[in-house]
Amino acid sequence: MNEVLKTIQNRFSCRGYTGEPIEQEKLDAIVKAALQSPTAMDAQRFKLIVITNKDMVDQLNEAAMEVLKSDPNPAFYERIKSRGGKVYYNAPCMVLVLKDADSKHGICDSGIMVQTMALAATSLGVDSVICAMASIPFSDKSKNAAEYKSKVGWEADQEFAMGILLGQGNITKEPHTISPQKVHYVR
Amino acid sequence: MNEVLKTIQNRFSCRGYTGEPIEQEKLDAIVKAALQSPTAMDAQRFKLIVITNKDMVDQLNEAAMEVLKSDPNPAFYERIKSRGGKVYYNAPCMVLVLKDADSKHGICDSGIMVQTMALAATSLGVDSVICAMASIPFSDKSKNAAEYKSKVGWEADQEFAMGILLGQGNITKEPHTISPQKVHYVR
Repeated sequence: MNEVLKTIQNRFSCRGYTGEPIEQEKLDAIVKAALQSPTAMDAQRFKLIVITNKDMVDQLNEAAMEVLKSDPNPAFYERIKSRGGKVYYNAPCMVLVLKDADSKHGICDSGIMVQTMALAATSLGVDSVICAMASIPFSDKSKNAAEYKSKVGWEADQEFAMGILLGQGNITKEPHTISPQKVHYVR
Repeated sequence: MNEVLKTIQNRFSCRGYTGEPIEQEKLDAIVKAALQSPTAMDAQRFKLIVITNKDMVDQLNEAAMEVLKSDPNPAFYERIKSRGGKVYYNAPCMVLVLKDADSKHGICDSGIMVQTMALAATSLGVDSVICAMASIPFSDKSKNAAEYKSKVGWEADQEFAMGILLGQGNITKEPHTISPQKVHYVR
């Protein structure tokens, strides 16, 4: 098995971080990998917001927790709260992948991009978790959404596509169990 | 630069194939990589249809060309026709990623999956192109869509998410130009 296949196999969704910053050189390589990802018709209709300011990630964490607290079903909030209140798992870096509002393939493009970052990260010893909940502080349910958007440079014609958290994990986890029965061959 | 970063850099969207089948061992590794891709909440709400029957890919190619021919703007059809009429580029293998119809994150999941396959393929010397047009023979515009769905094992509650073509390329191409100006840092 080559290094790429091993990396695909070993990547896991890390839900606990030390909070220590990522080395700049590694972050640069991960961001470059994202830019090397294919987009539909090479239209590159995305924007990447790379938040390495830990205070900002912590503020976004608080804003997300406030939204989750007001959910009609607070079970998820209570679970996170009981585990320390870190819905972003104390990660030192959050990357938001935004798409142009009228982009037809922007969601698929963002999936391509976050997995490319996750694999680049794994290859460099950086942990990650793809995180749809990164949208919460910027959503209609968040009372300071406009302020947060302004702070991170999110423009009016851009929409959330997907997020990823990056950092040094303080937990390990076995990769998920694969499901070969989901494959149908036409030979 | 490690092997994973090199592979991310070297992957390109290959739009011309010899038509020769992919070695079984390599195809197995690519499919396994797809299954090792993360899905939202590990729900794995997908189905992979792996078509290695070249006659079937060629039939789907004909069906897609027929749909494209009837498009109000036939410019794309004419371009493909003038290049030999192969909208699937003579690839010997098409993989369809289907999602459960009510899956919220199925499109993003499919992006994750096709890029994982593309990178696994590149690492094994297999070429690929992520291909949204793989949906055409199965779309409402295709007169034999139901027959094709039946032939490939596409079930009623499943929807197209994304496709990828795999094979041995007979062309090479430089990877796309990256756009560092699309990255905004919050430090």
